[in-house]
Amino acid sequence: MAAPSPDAVRKALSVPGQAGRVVRIGPVEVGAGPFVVMAGPCAVESGAQVEAAARAVARAGAHVLRGGAFKPRTSPYAFQGLGEAGLTLLAQAARANGLPVITEVMSEAQLPVVCAHADVLQIGARNMQNFSLLKAVAQVNKPVLLKRGLSATLDEWLLAAEYVLAGGNGEVMLCERGIRTFEPALRNTLDLGGVAWVKRRSPLPVVVDPSHATGDAALVLPLALAAAAAGADGLLVEVHPAPESALCDGAQALTPAAFSDLMSRLGPLLQALGRQLAAPAAPALGGAA
Amino acid sequence: MAAPSPDAVRKALSVPGQAGRVVRIGPVEVGAGPFVVMAGPCAVESGAQVEAAARAVARAGAHVLRGGAFKPRTSPYAFQGLGEAGLTLLAQAARANGLPVITEVMSEAQLPVVCAHADVLQIGARNMQNFSLLKAVAQVNKPVLLKRGLSATLDEWLLAAEYVLAGGNGEVMLCERGIRTFEPALRNTLDLGGVAWVKRRSPLPVVVDPSHATGDAALVLPLALAAAAAGADGLLVEVHPAPESALCDGAQALTPAAFSDLMSRLGPLLQALGRQLAAPAAPALGGAA
Amino acid sequence: MAAPSPDAVRKALSVPGQAGRVVRIGPVEVGAGPFVVMAGPCAVESGAQVEAAARAVARAGAHVLRGGAFKPRTSPYAFQGLGEAGLTLLAQAARANGLPVITEVMSEAQLPVVCAHADVLQIGARNMQNFSLLKAVAQVNKPVLLKRGLSATLDEWLLAAEYVLAGGNGEVMLCERGIRTFEPALRNTLDLGGVAWVKRRSPLPVVVDPSHATGDAALVLPLALAAAAAGADGLLVEVHPAPESALCDGAQALTPAAFSDLMSRLGPLLQALGRQLAAPAAPALGGAA
Amino acid sequence: MAAPSPDAVRKALSVPGQAGRVVRIGPVEVGAGPFVVMAGPCAVESGAQVEAAARAVARAGAHVLRGGAFKPRTSPYAFQGLGEAGLTLLAQAARANGLPVITEVMSEAQLPVVCAHADVLQIGARNMQNFSLLKAVAQVNKPVLLKRGLSATLDEWLLAAEYVLAGGNGEVMLCERGIRTFEPALRNTLDLGGVAWVKRRSPLPVVVDPSHATGDAALVLPLALAAAAAGADGLLVEVHPAPESALCDGAQALTPAAFSDLMSRLGPLLQALGRQLAAPAAPALGGAA
Repeated sequence: MAAPSPDAVRKALSVPGQAGRVVRIGPVEVGAGPFVVMAGPCAVESGAQVEAAARAVARAGAHVLRGGAFKPRTSPYAFQGLGEAGLTLLAQAARANGLPVITEVMSEAQLPVVCAHADVLQIGARNMQNFSLLKAVAQVNKPVLLKRGLSATLDEWLLAAEYVLAGGNGEVMLCERGIRTFEPALRNTLDLGGVAWVKRRSPLPVVVDPSHATGDAALVLPLALAAAAAGADGLLVEVHPAPESALCDGAQALTPAAFSDLMSRLGPLLQALGRQLAAPAAPALGGAA
Repeated sequence: MAAPSPDAVRKALSVPGQAGRVVRIGPVEVGAGPFVVMAGPCAVESGAQVEAAARAVARAGAHVLRGGAFKPRTSPYAFQGLGEAGLTLLAQAARANGLPVITEVMSEAQLPVVCAHADVLQIGARNMQNFSLLKAVAQVNKPVLLKRGLSATLDEWLLAAEYVLAGGNGEVMLCERGIRTFEPALRNTLDLGGVAWVKRRSPLPVVVDPSHATGDAALVLPLALAAAAAGADGLLVEVHPAPESALCDGAQALTPAAFSDLMSRLGPLLQALGRQLAAPAAPALGGAA
Repeated sequence: MAAPSPDAVRKALSVPGQAGRVVRIGPVEVGAGPFVVMAGPCAVESGAQVEAAARAVARAGAHVLRGGAFKPRTSPYAFQGLGEAGLTLLAQAARANGLPVITEVMSEAQLPVVCAHADVLQIGARNMQNFSLLKAVAQVNKPVLLKRGLSATLDEWLLAAEYVLAGGNGEVMLCERGIRTFEPALRNTLDLGGVAWVKRRSPLPVVVDPSHATGDAALVLPLALAAAAAGADGLLVEVHPAPESALCDGAQALTPAAFSDLMSRLGPLLQALGRQLAAPAAPALGGAA
Repeated sequence: MAAPSPDAVRKALSVPGQAGRVVRIGPVEVGAGPFVVMAGPCAVESGAQVEAAARAVARAGAHVLRGGAFKPRTSPYAFQGLGEAGLTLLAQAARANGLPVITEVMSEAQLPVVCAHADVLQIGARNMQNFSLLKAVAQVNKPVLLKRGLSATLDEWLLAAEYVLAGGNGEVMLCERGIRTFEPALRNTLDLGGVAWVKRRSPLPVVVDPSHATGDAALVLPLALAAAAAGADGLLVEVHPAPESALCDGAQALTPAAFSDLMSRLGPLLQALGRQLAAPAAPALGGAA
């Protein structure tokens, strides 16, 4: 993870057709061709909840466990996450099910504790241009998943990634999660044209989050399949053992059964595209055994 | 094509999961399950050009020939289309290759001449809320393809369709062609979440136009595949025998070879989704035989 | 109203700082410096309603009576306006109060009857790129007020005006009425920056419609004052004798008292800007005397 | 500055027509009625530059000196500001000209050094939902100016302010600086309708930044006047002694002469609105004497 020179980075980002960069999350490779699925609850709510979610997504073939412990909420009076206690529960559930962990970091001050528990650092959409935070994660020896800001242009997204790359951390994945438009029927507008465009402009892997993009669990399946068809390298999907009682974003969370259905449809679709699902995360990583 | 009562229509549009409506274009059925591809040049430029385009798209397996004779152009000084002469050339090329024709009608005054040559009437994005035109095409015995306005909400789009349905013409297809957002890198933002949403809210078939959505031929293939994966009933694609010399929108037109490649990839993808391409338009319709 | 050559028009539109074009509506001049106010109900509902509105706006010092007879409504089941009967009532109320009339024309077919009753033809936001209609009003000897489309760029707006200018009608006013953005709290986002930009780019007069821009009567006063301060040449304001019972857009209509208050505040503001309200429309035009 | 209870705050924010909150910056009061102008360069570039800017804005009657030392830049390769050295130069220039200082803080880590030099903490648009930073400035005994995010709804903006209020800092001003829309001609779209709406919903003072809203110095004057007419409590304006050689955002900076012209026009406009410019900042604060 030696820091590339600014010029090298810029050149890399602007050469279409260049071989893609592969980001490694333990045994999982993102951007190498096989399709990677990161799944789990919006927020860690309890040990039982996150364990149930981890078991369900591992069984269905997910590669990485997602879950939020520090939650960026629009209102200061909304549930703000369990914090460090949540990270501990998340990491336990992940290890018990042989999955690496991705979780959001919201500030420099949280960085040490998040790094102690997470395999991938997620930068949320509202922090995409929190340049202090970008410079801080550039100093850390962990892969970064950078969500596109709600109204960030594609160029601004690539330049935000550049803050991390130029700062010395080359392990960056991009994540399209819907942009803000005039349309009120869905939470956001998923920009798969932007995904296809970025895939031709940048070597960085691109992951799609159909859950935040729609805010509607019923639309996650068609958009997940569409993301794969558009050339995404993977998915970030919300799965909750009981969405109707979720403390956060329940309307967009898949049930374990719906997630399992999604995984079973992804395989044949990827094959038709000449691709495949990545192999499940190795038990050796944390060990369900 | 008896006029449904307003209440019946409204109810029909609002019942999720209802059986889809099938729109017939000669022998071609849109919305019946099999996937339908409408392809051809942005504008009819000459007899040779439209004949070459028609031949190419028919050979590759397209079901309907598209082409513009009356062109809505942002500037009054831009090429405005060949008008009636263009319609004649378009219809000749279509008949010679056994394809039905879709073309845009921009005003009530053009309606008789467009109806004399076209099998499907296209209402362009800029006319989606030209209510006088919607009321006029509601009186005509031809299927209508209604493009979504550049900043039309999904509800406004369905209500614009309602003008045609309530006016007595039940043969309406919707066409998503990208919405206008803050993003400057692409011409528009293709809203496949909107397509998935509409498929659950309305029985009308939904077609996707990846050419206008991106303005970039290189992005048409991934977005066409994504549209199929998201549940669209078909595509409207621009194909030009020589895009580099097109009088209009050349940057987004596929070459015949690229279109042929697209068609060959659609088949396996649709099969993986449990669907298939529609059978080619019958030679009996106009007759290449 | 001789047709300028396309090149002359284009040049005119692109020369910043050029002397403004003055559009004459009977005795009223728009763009000459003094500020012009067009006011009246969204829709003509009855003779009594439009007469009460006309009397109120004339007494408060408005220069032109606005009112809709053909209404572009999102839903086909909403009130569509009184049509020709509404035009007759509108023209009667206007004459009785010495005001010229502005009203919307939605199609070529309506053009003769609208021209028979109206002094200014309004092209609505949804028809800004109805190029057939633009070409038709270019052939008519009446001034045109061209509303900006909900998602039209400033360049597209000027080019739509160019259709009318290049077609032979030089009497064009522009009207900013709010654009569509992500913000849900207000109906639209009034773009006064766009007004200031256009005033530097084009010689055409620019009028602002704070009623449609906000959809909220309580915000009409501050935005009307802001429009004057930003350099607009006039206002288009909805006034209804009883907004709570209006058939259309009542929430954004001013009462006669609120409109009178607005007019009394405009005068001093304009003076502070080195401008003034235009003189009231001459009684000779239709005659309150 | 005792922390209000969450319920008290929420209630305060939601009561229209409530008496406005007054934020004190040394001797300057924002929200008390008189209009306050904060002006200065985008970035501190040198001692001579910031001293020239401070002198010019003080002479023209500005109340607060603005200037950036930590700059949030889209690209990591762009000028990032002089950092602490810039803060020192800024504070010296302010004291020498009797003005309090507003400057941006981008992270918790910068908070001590920024607090050592600044009288008001600015939270930039890109950090409006940097909730960690909002919670940090809530703990500090300095007024906060919270810029609206590029695509933040009005409700999200008020809820971001709520993070500061609920965290214990009641001295919050809001700043509208243009939102991101589809329009490419201007840098952003100034939302004065949003300003008028917020003034009726929240007791917090609202300041308008016409420089970032347009990105064009020629449009700053009309939009500054429009902001005052729409009911804003003050302005944040970029002024540079030599805009053509500015390291950052030169195209939107006023020259000292243009700023002086703006100030001379604001007075009469405010008087026509029944308001006035605030008295100049007291020399006692830092002392030009």
